[in-house]
Amino acid sequence: MPATPHVEKHFTSTEVVRDIVIGMSDGLTVPFALAAGISGAVSSARIIVVAGLAEIVAGSIAMGLGGFLAARTDLEHYRTERERETRETKAVPELETEEVAQVFRDYGMTDDQVGPVVAAISGDRKRWVDFMMRFELGLEEPDPNRAPQSAATIAVSYIAGGLIPLSPYMLVTGVGNALWVSVVVTLAALLIFGYIKGRFTGLNPLRGAIQTAAIGGLAAAAAFTIARAIS
Amino acid sequence: MPATPHVEKHFTSTEVVRDIVIGMSDGLTVPFALAAGISGAVSSARIIVVAGLAEIVAGSIAMGLGGFLAARTDLEHYRTERERETRETKAVPELETEEVAQVFRDYGMTDDQVGPVVAAISGDRKRWVDFMMRFELGLEEPDPNRAPQSAATIAVSYIAGGLIPLSPYMLVTGVGNALWVSVVVTLAALLIFGYIKGRFTGLNPLRGAIQTAAIGGLAAAAAFTIARAIS
Repeated sequence: MPATPHVEKHFTSTEVVRDIVIGMSDGLTVPFALAAGISGAVSSARIIVVAGLAEIVAGSIAMGLGGFLAARTDLEHYRTERERETRETKAVPELETEEVAQVFRDYGMTDDQVGPVVAAISGDRKRWVDFMMRFELGLEEPDPNRAPQSAATIAVSYIAGGLIPLSPYMLVTGVGNALWVSVVVTLAALLIFGYIKGRFTGLNPLRGAIQTAAIGGLAAAAAFTIARAIS
Repeated sequence: MPATPHVEKHFTSTEVVRDIVIGMSDGLTVPFALAAGISGAVSSARIIVVAGLAEIVAGSIAMGLGGFLAARTDLEHYRTERERETRETKAVPELETEEVAQVFRDYGMTDDQVGPVVAAISGDRKRWVDFMMRFELGLEEPDPNRAPQSAATIAVSYIAGGLIPLSPYMLVTGVGNALWVSVVVTLAALLIFGYIKGRFTGLNPLRGAIQTAAIGGLAAAAAFTIARAIS
């Protein structure tokens, strides 16, 4: 048996699918709950559709653009920390080699064993800084191309997800009927996406399905209850 | 100059403040954009307040509960991978020691240098598995207490943040007036929270302020435009 199939799995469970599932299950949840909530207070399908579309637009921008900027911040943070580490290996090399040594001492190695390891790592500045970034700071270099791609995927999936609970209010006559169609269609979609999400996060897929549907259902029920209570 | 203040900074920039800022800036953005959007289509402040509160309830549940379950999934994932690594150190120790050796070879160490390091690390199973988790899989053990606390903090902050853009619609007479008060108050709040967020993520605070306000403003403008277009 090869010892590293789980590592492979980490890297191949396509990030794009993960982004689609994240965007879509969030897109399903909040617009669904919002539309259901408003339907507890108003009887005009038009208002529900307007509010739902406004939410989808706002949510997809906040999620997509917010995610993009956060990823860019991570990349800048990585680069800033990396520059600082590089400067420190030049300015205070003895402190930085001591930090490398400490990492290995923490794994129970004696000073005799640590010596050559530290010498090997600090013999090449790039490797040395690589080591400090990964093992001291626990930072991995973010992929600069991932951020825009990931943000766009999440935003588009959010929009696609949000249109699922909203479409019954556009197509079915009567807010009450539309609400029930929306509940059935959306819970089914949440179950499917929760299942896929579970598979991609290594969780039990059935539990993923139930959890995702439960969050959506709970959010919708709470939104419905509060909207009805105040109107 | 101590070489590790940046490490300290990582761990002490209180996670709670970070959660408050995350929840609050998201809570400010989507309910703000939603309320502004609906105000482009309807003239009833009551409907805007109902929709806004429904969104706040739905969003805080989706964000809080979703975040909580995601954190619990991370913890379970860590434990599953850890059990698998522990099993593998027993079942295929030669492959696992080879994986440890490979990590150090990648840092330019010779086989002579790698030998004692691998022996020291694999001499204690807990350390060995610790090493594999951190350096091979890049996984850190999540704090089991963080998840519920973080989820609750984010949810409550989302609610508090969402009430800021919504309160003018409850307090100011006339949807048009309320919209302008909401825009001014919310943009000011987004600037403040973006500034704080920038400080806590190591970004330039002024840029954080402008970015956060820009996302909120853009989301609100887009929601307003689409709501007005379809109504």
